[in-house]
Amino acid sequence: MPEQSTYASAGVDIEAGKKATDLMKSAVQATYTRDVLAGLGSFGGLFSGSKLKQMEDPILVASTDGVGTKTRVAARLNRWETIGTDLVNHCINDILVQGATPLFFLDYIASSKLDPIQIATVVRGVANACQAAEAALLGGETAEMPGVYHEGEIDLVGTIVGAVDKRNLIDGSKIYAGNAIMALPSSGIHTNGYTLARHVLAEEDWLSPHPMLDNQPLGEVLLTPHQSYLSPVTQLRQNNVNIYGLAHITGGGVIDNLPRILPEGTAAQIELGSWPIPPVFTLIQELGQVAPEEMYHVFNMGLGMLVIVPIDEVPLVQRVLGDEVSLVGEITEGNGEVVLK
Amino acid sequence: MPEQSTYASAGVDIEAGKKATDLMKSAVQATYTRDVLAGLGSFGGLFSGSKLKQMEDPILVASTDGVGTKTRVAARLNRWETIGTDLVNHCINDILVQGATPLFFLDYIASSKLDPIQIATVVRGVANACQAAEAALLGGETAEMPGVYHEGEIDLVGTIVGAVDKRNLIDGSKIYAGNAIMALPSSGIHTNGYTLARHVLAEEDWLSPHPMLDNQPLGEVLLTPHQSYLSPVTQLRQNNVNIYGLAHITGGGVIDNLPRILPEGTAAQIELGSWPIPPVFTLIQELGQVAPEEMYHVFNMGLGMLVIVPIDEVPLVQRVLGDEVSLVGEITEGNGEVVLK
Repeated sequence: MPEQSTYASAGVDIEAGKKATDLMKSAVQATYTRDVLAGLGSFGGLFSGSKLKQMEDPILVASTDGVGTKTRVAARLNRWETIGTDLVNHCINDILVQGATPLFFLDYIASSKLDPIQIATVVRGVANACQAAEAALLGGETAEMPGVYHEGEIDLVGTIVGAVDKRNLIDGSKIYAGNAIMALPSSGIHTNGYTLARHVLAEEDWLSPHPMLDNQPLGEVLLTPHQSYLSPVTQLRQNNVNIYGLAHITGGGVIDNLPRILPEGTAAQIELGSWPIPPVFTLIQELGQVAPEEMYHVFNMGLGMLVIVPIDEVPLVQRVLGDEVSLVGEITEGNGEVVLK
Repeated sequence: MPEQSTYASAGVDIEAGKKATDLMKSAVQATYTRDVLAGLGSFGGLFSGSKLKQMEDPILVASTDGVGTKTRVAARLNRWETIGTDLVNHCINDILVQGATPLFFLDYIASSKLDPIQIATVVRGVANACQAAEAALLGGETAEMPGVYHEGEIDLVGTIVGAVDKRNLIDGSKIYAGNAIMALPSSGIHTNGYTLARHVLAEEDWLSPHPMLDNQPLGEVLLTPHQSYLSPVTQLRQNNVNIYGLAHITGGGVIDNLPRILPEGTAAQIELGSWPIPPVFTLIQELGQVAPEEMYHVFNMGLGMLVIVPIDEVPLVQRVLGDEVSLVGEITEGNGEVVLK
């Protein structure tokens, strides 16, 4: 006679999921703005459309993304506090480039075995970043997938929904040759290129102060959260800067991401040395003997968000954002190519 | 001297991602309704809010979910056509229970190594189900995560955003003792309980006609797509049925899902034998010697969607939906418990 089967003996623990939910509950509820009509516990989260009704011509902007193998850095260090912030900030920036501000966020986290404390720690990071952006963490899902994930590893996926009134939409169509390209600095690798970074850095000491990283431990540098550009971009808009284009430099680097917003007949010239490159990139390039063009095709190289403005608004941008922003290049005539020189 | 490192040698193939995008492009674009203002290739998908502006008091309803280890059934059979349909239909039902109809959908698919044909096949399944529901597949992400996923395995995550005008919101608050509980049939296991199902059925023959499954092969039965209830529920609404509550029977079974919509002071009584139980559940229960209460706590047991209506509207529901619907129980006084007898 076969042994009696239960869900638990097959490797799924429904109680662990409930425990994780209890542990994250207060952080999630702290993100609820008055627009949240139902959250935790309901089948779908409910969010009031009243802000959209007030817009002249509302447009919803949505994006789904993960944090890539930055999760493996968190796993190696067993530190789960900030990976949720990476996820939220990445998504915020992805809709910000079109002029949208966040309404709400949903997350998904999966592993081979649910560890309630680990899951709740990750989701609290998600919730904290949502709260900072005044985005409601409207829903989420945790999944236990034995046999799909390697032991100790997780995947983390987020979806953001934001809105923009059509007259405020940024789509790059106003860009013309002669415009300035300015850069908001990245905080490090953000969430793209970790497979290459870990490959190159696998044998390094991750825990001791590192001489090439201003004596910060490599592990800490690798976990530095993805920067959100919601605040500086909002400041620029409040100061009536004419933002013609925004490019979030993610997978594919400046080489692949900047062309996505360039109108026909234009190209971009970026002046090397005009912005600070975080030392972690120099370390990766030297240790891995990575070709420079490969570096700019995989990593942000310190260019977190590019802002395209008319050349005569450069002083205004600098006045509003101070040293935080660098003038890194200009729009030229061309066929969408990005020239680094 | 160390070998030169590239993203490709570290295990990530940017070109494979591009190839997958090319293969899925036409299916994705076929889902674009006139509300889609920007899709593939833009940072975030853009969706017109004009439908929301036309509503009196619009509410956005959103949900994120995965398909659990049904992906492992697809992997074992190497059949990827329908798993995307599972994902979309599950999400549609999750917002349908609150009265919402879909606006748009976003998907995420990840594995240790991107196989462009596999990924594109999955996403075409997502796109087809979206098109059938008139939901735009507004965005998506594919991720290559070597070391996180076991070889050949994938995870698949979806987020749906829908809308409902407040006056049409269904929240269970109108339910009272004496109401009828009716059931729309599931098409099988749907997307919950696969870890237990696979555990019990691992050693069975999945390919030959199975005597306990009307001679269908087990593999085919296990892959049967999750049923969408958008069409029958829409029919009921068009016929002015007073739907007091809808419960999508997912993880946790009828035991956990029905109480989520029961107002204080009410409970539910379900009459065993009043609806057809798909034979796959009987097979699992017998082979695995699974306790009956465990079966109803893990699987839908044939109850795909429960519809709570005033008792005098039962004939109307039956006239609209015919044999498709079963009267399976009634609301009683109580404390949220679900009694099966």
